[in-house]
Amino acid sequence: MKALVYQGPGKKAVLDHPEPVTTGPGDAIVRITKTTICGTDLHILKGDVPTCEPGRVLGHEGVGVVTSIGAAVATFKPGDRVLISCISACGKCFYCRKLMYSHCTTGGWILGNKIDGTQAEFVRIPHADTSLYPIPEGVDEEALVMLSDILPTGFECGVLNSKIQPGGTVCIVGAGPIGLAALLTAEFYAPSKVLMVDLDDGRLEIAKRFGATATVNSADGHAAETILRMTDGRGVDTAIEAVGIPATFELCEKIVAPGGVIANIGVHGTKVDLHLENLWDRNITITTRLVDTVSTPMLLSILRSNKINLKQLITHRFRLETILEAYETFENAASTHALKVIIEA
Amino acid sequence: MKALVYQGPGKKAVLDHPEPVTTGPGDAIVRITKTTICGTDLHILKGDVPTCEPGRVLGHEGVGVVTSIGAAVATFKPGDRVLISCISACGKCFYCRKLMYSHCTTGGWILGNKIDGTQAEFVRIPHADTSLYPIPEGVDEEALVMLSDILPTGFECGVLNSKIQPGGTVCIVGAGPIGLAALLTAEFYAPSKVLMVDLDDGRLEIAKRFGATATVNSADGHAAETILRMTDGRGVDTAIEAVGIPATFELCEKIVAPGGVIANIGVHGTKVDLHLENLWDRNITITTRLVDTVSTPMLLSILRSNKINLKQLITHRFRLETILEAYETFENAASTHALKVIIEA
Amino acid sequence: MKALVYQGPGKKAVLDHPEPVTTGPGDAIVRITKTTICGTDLHILKGDVPTCEPGRVLGHEGVGVVTSIGAAVATFKPGDRVLISCISACGKCFYCRKLMYSHCTTGGWILGNKIDGTQAEFVRIPHADTSLYPIPEGVDEEALVMLSDILPTGFECGVLNSKIQPGGTVCIVGAGPIGLAALLTAEFYAPSKVLMVDLDDGRLEIAKRFGATATVNSADGHAAETILRMTDGRGVDTAIEAVGIPATFELCEKIVAPGGVIANIGVHGTKVDLHLENLWDRNITITTRLVDTVSTPMLLSILRSNKINLKQLITHRFRLETILEAYETFENAASTHALKVIIEA
Amino acid sequence: MKALVYQGPGKKAVLDHPEPVTTGPGDAIVRITKTTICGTDLHILKGDVPTCEPGRVLGHEGVGVVTSIGAAVATFKPGDRVLISCISACGKCFYCRKLMYSHCTTGGWILGNKIDGTQAEFVRIPHADTSLYPIPEGVDEEALVMLSDILPTGFECGVLNSKIQPGGTVCIVGAGPIGLAALLTAEFYAPSKVLMVDLDDGRLEIAKRFGATATVNSADGHAAETILRMTDGRGVDTAIEAVGIPATFELCEKIVAPGGVIANIGVHGTKVDLHLENLWDRNITITTRLVDTVSTPMLLSILRSNKINLKQLITHRFRLETILEAYETFENAASTHALKVIIEA
Repeated sequence: MKALVYQGPGKKAVLDHPEPVTTGPGDAIVRITKTTICGTDLHILKGDVPTCEPGRVLGHEGVGVVTSIGAAVATFKPGDRVLISCISACGKCFYCRKLMYSHCTTGGWILGNKIDGTQAEFVRIPHADTSLYPIPEGVDEEALVMLSDILPTGFECGVLNSKIQPGGTVCIVGAGPIGLAALLTAEFYAPSKVLMVDLDDGRLEIAKRFGATATVNSADGHAAETILRMTDGRGVDTAIEAVGIPATFELCEKIVAPGGVIANIGVHGTKVDLHLENLWDRNITITTRLVDTVSTPMLLSILRSNKINLKQLITHRFRLETILEAYETFENAASTHALKVIIEA
Repeated sequence: MKALVYQGPGKKAVLDHPEPVTTGPGDAIVRITKTTICGTDLHILKGDVPTCEPGRVLGHEGVGVVTSIGAAVATFKPGDRVLISCISACGKCFYCRKLMYSHCTTGGWILGNKIDGTQAEFVRIPHADTSLYPIPEGVDEEALVMLSDILPTGFECGVLNSKIQPGGTVCIVGAGPIGLAALLTAEFYAPSKVLMVDLDDGRLEIAKRFGATATVNSADGHAAETILRMTDGRGVDTAIEAVGIPATFELCEKIVAPGGVIANIGVHGTKVDLHLENLWDRNITITTRLVDTVSTPMLLSILRSNKINLKQLITHRFRLETILEAYETFENAASTHALKVIIEA
Repeated sequence: MKALVYQGPGKKAVLDHPEPVTTGPGDAIVRITKTTICGTDLHILKGDVPTCEPGRVLGHEGVGVVTSIGAAVATFKPGDRVLISCISACGKCFYCRKLMYSHCTTGGWILGNKIDGTQAEFVRIPHADTSLYPIPEGVDEEALVMLSDILPTGFECGVLNSKIQPGGTVCIVGAGPIGLAALLTAEFYAPSKVLMVDLDDGRLEIAKRFGATATVNSADGHAAETILRMTDGRGVDTAIEAVGIPATFELCEKIVAPGGVIANIGVHGTKVDLHLENLWDRNITITTRLVDTVSTPMLLSILRSNKINLKQLITHRFRLETILEAYETFENAASTHALKVIIEA
Repeated sequence: MKALVYQGPGKKAVLDHPEPVTTGPGDAIVRITKTTICGTDLHILKGDVPTCEPGRVLGHEGVGVVTSIGAAVATFKPGDRVLISCISACGKCFYCRKLMYSHCTTGGWILGNKIDGTQAEFVRIPHADTSLYPIPEGVDEEALVMLSDILPTGFECGVLNSKIQPGGTVCIVGAGPIGLAALLTAEFYAPSKVLMVDLDDGRLEIAKRFGATATVNSADGHAAETILRMTDGRGVDTAIEAVGIPATFELCEKIVAPGGVIANIGVHGTKVDLHLENLWDRNITITTRLVDTVSTPMLLSILRSNKINLKQLITHRFRLETILEAYETFENAASTHALKVIIEA
């Protein structure tokens, strides 16, 4: 089958790759119909993810059709249309029983990382019963691809962790796809203000279209002061970090109100300064989280009720044959204005 | 009246000081019967607390008897025996209505800081209805002094913030009075393990007597490894920082289990390194808090039911005339083995 | 001054009544600009509320302007425009400190019940600092009247108590003003379905306009079956009782899903049958609540951000002189289609 | 093998019964070493549980040793010592993913009810990975039998559902084994008062030994007044119903404080009167629950830390051959003073 294969730092290729087969009783094989590219795939290609070895098929998002199942799979049968979760969960281990699927002792984020992923014609999904989701009638397939990773990530790590309340004030630092997913799901809780911060006016424009009540371009170095001014000097109840560098995390430290929450989504490669000399008496909370995808059933239910428009996250479409172009488009978002790209397999 | 007066960095004296009078309708004057010294008083004496100006009577803990009240005080009358909260709360402002008394816009930690405090014969308490508590029948006065600050601080900042669960694992870093208060109140939730870390074997010995299930002297530089070994390599559900320096906070970062909480109690004077490159995907929570004393009624109820022995925190007793000796004893805890000292006024 | 005075069961009149004066240091006198009539006022007039004695000025909702204050009032001064809460709260007692203002030992629901109320030119508000709210700039006064009682009641008793989640399913039994307030505030949490049940097709039509995803006229006696069919046989996550009679509460028992909540808002005059033989193993929760109005600041913030249109609840407008007509219109809602009526004073 | 077989209402016998074999890939066969009898078994024998048909081996509690496993069982292997949960959970369905194992669509309470149970030499356990628990080193086997059902039932349905807080007041109505299990686990949260109500002075005596702070014999018909007097007229924060008849549930309605919780554990065969005319404005919560056994890992951890003495619940011991005597002893608890009986297989 055709697959996008990682070949070591900086190198990738579309290759012929052996089709996967079930290797355990809980496995399912899924024929991919649609997949996408994630910022994490770019991290792998930079060589930043040592668990991902050369020869690996990339990709951890997608929808498809079950083609075969192991003996213990109870929920799915060949022919079922399914959503693939970016997190594989056994449903049995210490962490899965606490609904912390991200830390499943035989799963977690393994797809397109420790085992072959979804940027291919077929993929093997371990723990299929608890890692795939039936597709409800009448839901758009492209929108569904957003539920593999980006939407639960924005929602769980950003919105659920920060306990947004109706009437509350929110600032999301970073208006990329993940920040926008946090924005769209923050709106489930009717906050009175959602401020969006980025360096790119184009993305801020999109954020406004998605419902941000105000935007701040942080290029002038005065974002903290601006945001404090916009919130009567008090700061925001919720600051969501959706970039992953020290500067943006430290901005969150400056704008969080007493009693507020900093919810980190960003993937950080280095330590940050935590200014406890200012924060020790401010009654704040900081959270980190790798998405657990425990909210997937809830998000499916919301998607089905048309409370959210996910197709606006999709800017480009490609076929698996031309996935290298898709990567190029996605990597050059500043010029291509790409958010999420759909790859049809 | 006699009072312990701050006279600028490094200087304090027992002086004759004007007796306080009510200045607002919500004030009460309290004749102090017992007070104590807090680590924060030592910070002030080092010059670390700029809001506290020379000439200020120190002290924010104590019990006493109401001698006069303003026109709007509804809960107390002269002659009532009262517990003084270290936090003054108006009960009306934005923060008080969220039960965040620490950030009361006309209160918070002002006693012995922005206004004269309790190390004196009399003290003026603003917002008396919501900053004093009636003393229940039959409760020991010395034990009650522990409820002005140290017990709610250990409980709210350490135990409540870290959501300790029955059967959970806890590590408290710092076995001083505040760490021990966290230990005593952690036991309300039946954790299966409470590990206690300190550099002083004497304090660790006390911690054991107070119920710690194991102790770790961190002098060897291997505390993190030791604690991980004691917890099957997983780390603790709750790490409580009760010192206030980078080394102890960073120890907490190393020993917190996935899904766990670091609850900061320590007063920090400098930033710490937050290793988000290790923690971003560990689903952890970090909290900070200045005590709100919202748990005081709960703690009074527990004290009254004899579920906790607070007198074991008290090691020395003095009279107001000899409070300078009390300070010396408290400052030299390593040699005097002082925990809390009682000063009778 | 002019006032609507209760004169015993079945009797009311617009009379000249002495103007109120402050009687305690925490009182404020408010000149009413707008008030309204509540279903509870009709209960009083039926003689169902023994705490309300003949001679009482009715009314517990309204907005106005402060004209004088007691010595201890800190938040307001004459000339301030204020929202009056239906619940008076001292902010100091055992219950107020638990944010259960409804049970304030010297307050609670006393306005227009145990003390003179708001259907008059002036009203005395005890505990003014914690029972009045400043009116934000630019917010419509008529919309604000909905925040005295009806909106916090629907929100706290119905929506907050039932812990509505994004994607969840809700059924509100009773499409009167309170049921509609529950509907409007349920939408803060993005439920996937909100079903509305009533006997009056006109009210169901309004419910649809307000955002109900489906409506059920229960006149045919098959509402339970219909609702189960609409929810794949499982029932609803949240059933809100907004009528106050056994039949509607028992309907909620039949339609609540395993793990779901029945949140009672209705004022009940008689016991109901609780079918524990069916419910003991269904993991359900039942809640009751007299509104605490602790959510008023949150609701003000939402109102200010234009997330909710409250003027659609207002169907008729009168002047204080013609309040008897207003009562007649409100009492005959079936024919007049009245929801809330505004009375300008 | 030998087994206790239900033979229709009022009839049971120790018979030779075919040994179970695995029928699905997730099954395990367990050789029983210790089991016990539950009040529910008596209900079945009265004919009250129509899902349990004649010919069924009774029993849903026990510990044992795995003898064989299906192809998909990942956590256990033959020879492993295991605790059997009374609730079978697939870990995959809608309800299991919400940690509501009691409502598992292919499990729940099926053992000794819809499939053969544990009062036998061997038992088949479906969904073994998520329905069995490894036995920690050094934990007493008899104590462990209490973790199959009675302890999680008292804890989850009574204690967790009622959100007991340190310093809170609790009343448990019914001092049978389940009520005592609620008592033992209520103590995890350091309540200031735990009152225990029963008609049998012998059981109340035991309750005192187990830690009840006071006991009330309700035979005089004045239990409600007595309890209100014991709680300053306010009532209790938590009322736990552990009997299952209208009189005891209605007692809970009378003694619950404003803002309090009634947590139902009892198995009810008939409706009760819910006095909403008294309770609609009292801000109370009522919960029902079939045990989910989600707290089993937590309880194992507590048991392992010696925070609880479960052997005091065990009053009699028998062998499987003499299980009919065990039943007789258990059925006549008033005269035999039986709490839990251990049956060694």
